[in-house]
Amino acid sequence: MASVDVPVALLGYGTVGAAVHRLLEEQADEIERATGHRLRVVRALVRDPAKHRGFSPEPGVLTTDHADIAGDASIRVVAEVMGGVEPAGDYVLAALTAGRSVVTANKQLVARRGTELFAAASANGVQLRFEASVCAAIPVIKVLRESLVVTNVHRVLGIVNGTTNFMLSSMEGGLSYADALAEAQRLGYAEADPTDGVGGIDAAAKTAILATVAFGSRVPIEWVAVEGIEGLTTEHIVAARALEMKVKLLGRATLADGRIDVRVGPAFVDARHPLAAVEGAFNAVMLQGDAIREITLEGPGAGGIETASAVVADMVSVVGTTGTGFLQNDPVWRDLPQMAPGDLPSNWYLRLKVEDRSGVLARIAQELADQQVSVARLVQQPGHGGAVLHVVTHEAPAGSVDAALASIWALPESRGEASALPVVSDRGVEELGWH
Amino acid sequence: MASVDVPVALLGYGTVGAAVHRLLEEQADEIERATGHRLRVVRALVRDPAKHRGFSPEPGVLTTDHADIAGDASIRVVAEVMGGVEPAGDYVLAALTAGRSVVTANKQLVARRGTELFAAASANGVQLRFEASVCAAIPVIKVLRESLVVTNVHRVLGIVNGTTNFMLSSMEGGLSYADALAEAQRLGYAEADPTDGVGGIDAAAKTAILATVAFGSRVPIEWVAVEGIEGLTTEHIVAARALEMKVKLLGRATLADGRIDVRVGPAFVDARHPLAAVEGAFNAVMLQGDAIREITLEGPGAGGIETASAVVADMVSVVGTTGTGFLQNDPVWRDLPQMAPGDLPSNWYLRLKVEDRSGVLARIAQELADQQVSVARLVQQPGHGGAVLHVVTHEAPAGSVDAALASIWALPESRGEASALPVVSDRGVEELGWH
Repeated sequence: MASVDVPVALLGYGTVGAAVHRLLEEQADEIERATGHRLRVVRALVRDPAKHRGFSPEPGVLTTDHADIAGDASIRVVAEVMGGVEPAGDYVLAALTAGRSVVTANKQLVARRGTELFAAASANGVQLRFEASVCAAIPVIKVLRESLVVTNVHRVLGIVNGTTNFMLSSMEGGLSYADALAEAQRLGYAEADPTDGVGGIDAAAKTAILATVAFGSRVPIEWVAVEGIEGLTTEHIVAARALEMKVKLLGRATLADGRIDVRVGPAFVDARHPLAAVEGAFNAVMLQGDAIREITLEGPGAGGIETASAVVADMVSVVGTTGTGFLQNDPVWRDLPQMAPGDLPSNWYLRLKVEDRSGVLARIAQELADQQVSVARLVQQPGHGGAVLHVVTHEAPAGSVDAALASIWALPESRGEASALPVVSDRGVEELGWH
Repeated sequence: MASVDVPVALLGYGTVGAAVHRLLEEQADEIERATGHRLRVVRALVRDPAKHRGFSPEPGVLTTDHADIAGDASIRVVAEVMGGVEPAGDYVLAALTAGRSVVTANKQLVARRGTELFAAASANGVQLRFEASVCAAIPVIKVLRESLVVTNVHRVLGIVNGTTNFMLSSMEGGLSYADALAEAQRLGYAEADPTDGVGGIDAAAKTAILATVAFGSRVPIEWVAVEGIEGLTTEHIVAARALEMKVKLLGRATLADGRIDVRVGPAFVDARHPLAAVEGAFNAVMLQGDAIREITLEGPGAGGIETASAVVADMVSVVGTTGTGFLQNDPVWRDLPQMAPGDLPSNWYLRLKVEDRSGVLARIAQELADQQVSVARLVQQPGHGGAVLHVVTHEAPAGSVDAALASIWALPESRGEASALPVVSDRGVEELGWH
């Protein structure tokens, strides 16, 4: 096959953009072997061309004027690595409308403007790929779309934010929440304003994209019930350890009875579950489906070169499959409803602070039974002028657990805490030992 | 895109073949959405058409005559799910030569006749895909070829045999080797003759394929240094636990200084390493490369429906990318030499039985130093009228460790054991605690 020269453009030339350019140049032979094409960066949009950069493009490549890219009819593929919803979204839309394929690393853009952008790609016969928008170099989008096409994936569980996973690992190691956050900031994992990470916002966008691709139905980011890790303390870590579990911030997407539930929040994860072993700033996604049982992908979920490798892999897939119609664009082909939030069944860990006197346990057991919440294990610990009850339940809908907790909270014997976390386990809850 | 009817044939109709047929029928709409094609099984080669099967093909599909498939010019894709090197290899070669794309689940065939079969595919402009030949539904071949095309993968570490991993997990749980094997046989994981599994032969074929794809250079199965788990006892498990490690049968492929080393054998794996958490009959493969640090894929590495899902995904990729030249055939593009077996560097766990008297430790330390093998940690335990030394070394070439062990074995103070296992760890060996 004769080599074909493919002019490409970059929107943005920060850490990721420069790494994309470097990989395209250094790995040009590998790319040509795989696809028969040589990808050449002819334009890159920047704010300040004079800024010093790790990888220096040739003179004339950097431009501050988007019209230089929009108006260059030779450009075949545009990689959007500038971030932010605007103006990135308008630039991507313009590229697609002009008949260029686009690769993006922008999770907020895909989660928030996906419908419109995929429609533009389809209408113009070009591709829109977005592997790097979720978990950087971990190829979960390609695996979902191409390897698991016949497996009816019905559940996605993911550790999709490295900052919070690093913090939780640090808390396992004995740090307080505040110290773990400070350490994450010192190492550059967490922003000065860490809200997007610790609040679950970042994980919510990624989980919405994963759910959309896994279930083939658009999951608006507004559907995602989001809880961050701000409320976690070392007490949670200690309680989890006593149950042979770890506390993780999980994105969870479920397809059940034709309805979708997507949420991000802290969960107890059985120590023998594959996600429990994911430590530090790493990410991992578990896909559960009919024909595969479960497949877990783990790796670095962030980083300039890691993100760039996913962007380049998508560019390679674009030029390698152009003209075939093979799994190019919108993963959405159906329109499933959202599940009512209280309907999602799970095992639960309940933590209840109560007065330490006879009859309390019976009343709590009755409140749980009234909501059909069945207790698998219960341990009572004395403390703070009362008792702490640790309860692991059999599977029960979130709404029933919430109702039971509200009733328990209102009991005269209640002492200010009645909270729940979902339990993720490969084992039946009966087998969960308490040490 | 108008739907295109694609006649396909199956070579073999056992558990995997029947599951392929069922998935193609049940998931026909999903496949058409992804590719615009409907795949229809028109022929399936069997030995006994009268045998009862879980999924019954229409009359006329089953045939005992390979000529019915070879002579049917309408067939576009052939899925080889019969197993064995012959006659499967000749049938696959005939299909490729006749201009049909082939998907195979046959690891021994790909490992032993790959050169010839990929050449035939290229010469005839068709595809040969083999995802299911390694770790069933875990899409490690697609990820290596399409997602990691620019990442210079230089190391592959895999738990690629479920039987032995199940046995080692059972030994962790307290069973003896013999009882673990019996349990694996009772559950159907191990064959009545378990040699291929416990002897590492099965893992060797898979590791050779992974190394070939990862490094783009043919790794003949004869290059793979193979050691099974037959020599492992609960003493190894206990020693590993004391080091916060687990014993795993690992396939390990290394590309260093332009040379390849591939081996299968037991190893100590740090409890915090992602592969340590892989339990029971599951498989996992870790890919290490320049741009990605490491990506780990985990899932069921065997099973009829799991294997079938990978076969169907490959068939979908064939019809989805036909005509594009996108990463279709031989992953080999260079010709790297094999590393001398003694050159591979690793950390090591050494287990030495010696007389328990003064001066012995000094002599052993001297023998190690003579081979430039540096000790990171050492613990001496009394036992059996002598002492057992547990040593963890800094990185040293296998040949140096072998030479040191031979010298130690020959010492008058030696008491019949001087063995080594590689240590796999994310941590520096200095951090490995001893409890």
